[in-house]
Amino acid sequence: MADIIFYTNPRSRGQIVRFMLEELGEPYETVLLDYGTTMKSADYLAINPMGKVPAIRHLGADGKGRVVTEAAAICAYLADAYPQSQLAPALPDRAAYYRWLFFAAGPVESAMLDRARKLETEGQQKVMAGYGSWADVMQALDIAVSGGEWLAGERFSAADVYAGLSMDWLAMFGMMEPSAPVAAYLQRLRARPAYQRAKAIDAELGAAAGG
Amino acid sequence: MADIIFYTNPRSRGQIVRFMLEELGEPYETVLLDYGTTMKSADYLAINPMGKVPAIRHLGADGKGRVVTEAAAICAYLADAYPQSQLAPALPDRAAYYRWLFFAAGPVESAMLDRARKLETEGQQKVMAGYGSWADVMQALDIAVSGGEWLAGERFSAADVYAGLSMDWLAMFGMMEPSAPVAAYLQRLRARPAYQRAKAIDAELGAAAGG
Ligand SMILES: N[C@@H](CCC(=O)N[C@@H](CS)C(=O)NCC(=O)O)C(=O)O
Ligand SMILES: N[C@@H](CCC(=O)N[C@@H](CS)C(=O)NCC(=O)O)C(=O)O
Repeated sequence: MADIIFYTNPRSRGQIVRFMLEELGEPYETVLLDYGTTMKSADYLAINPMGKVPAIRHLGADGKGRVVTEAAAICAYLADAYPQSQLAPALPDRAAYYRWLFFAAGPVESAMLDRARKLETEGQQKVMAGYGSWADVMQALDIAVSGGEWLAGERFSAADVYAGLSMDWLAMFGMMEPSAPVAAYLQRLRARPAYQRAKAIDAELGAAAGG
Repeated sequence: MADIIFYTNPRSRGQIVRFMLEELGEPYETVLLDYGTTMKSADYLAINPMGKVPAIRHLGADGKGRVVTEAAAICAYLADAYPQSQLAPALPDRAAYYRWLFFAAGPVESAMLDRARKLETEGQQKVMAGYGSWADVMQALDIAVSGGEWLAGERFSAADVYAGLSMDWLAMFGMMEPSAPVAAYLQRLRARPAYQRAKAIDAELGAAAGG
């Protein structure tokens, strides 16, 4: 049995974790769950009470399984759990690493939800809302991708997996018009073999599930 | 000059970082910014293009200043930058640590924004929205605080600073009715000397600023 068990659906934010696992290169076992049914089973609710994917169970050195939910948390955890992968930068670069990981998990997600519902923050709401406005988020992402080759500097990291795939998603669903620096960044991201493997696996699983 | 420069306003999410800094016990210098004016100055936008607080600049071992924005990112970064503080757990407990840090930064924040606007997710929106529904988030928080004394196990961590203060905020603003386990957890949190120092400092600064 692999040390990492990965709970997912091929058409979900699980694609982010698939990309992370393919970057990691460690063996993992996939458990496929369906919307509304197995995702809401008692067995799975014991793993993620939100009844959502992705989640992982990691056996770890002590042999006790540790559950991690939240796509960004899974990326950060796996990067630390497998230091030889060098997917989490060392100290000074952890500044930009955490900054953009949390920026994507917080403001970007929140802005994306409003965008999908055609809601916009206005006036005082922008002051209180963690994401400010859609324009603020877009501008911050431009700055994020312009600091170096990757978000945490010159080396690819788990922040690129998570925040990068969020941007990829926004671009693919036509929710944002990528600026020149974001477009160039996404081109680098999509060129990664792990990105391509992950996409291919989920595309195949999605097709097999029908439709 | 202190190694940590802290940009904040006493009436803001900067209170979270103040609590973190008081837990850390390292010297820091506070730069107070005002809503709408100094927060939107060119100097500060160069630090945080969102024009929001909190942010920090950390001098670090190489003497180059590293900026971190996003309250949760600042907590995670400082915990790693000062390992002697033991505010970031070692490996297996990093599972719960990241899980609840990101749960608070993502789903909780997003749910809180909707709640403040009296919006509720419904039907298919719950499937797509990272936070599901308000009830889902409340239930997950119950589970989060029931795993041990603190969110990442038996030792207090930066996850408690960030996620704990988010819960504290929700309770204080009457946005949630704390369940028994959350109420007990918040009591432990409020008993911490660093929590009390941080609150006192920001209360005094807020009063001095007038109002
Ligand atoms: N905040 C979570 C969001 C997870 C999420 O919303 N997953 C969706 C698929 S993309 C899901 O499992 N929905 C099923 C449901 O809510 O019933 C994360 O980042 O992992
Ligand atoms: N996602 C950010 C949110 C920061 C935020 O929204 N701060 C508010 C105060 S609580 C702010 O500075 N607002 C000023 C403005 O938007 O003009 C974080 O977690 O740090």
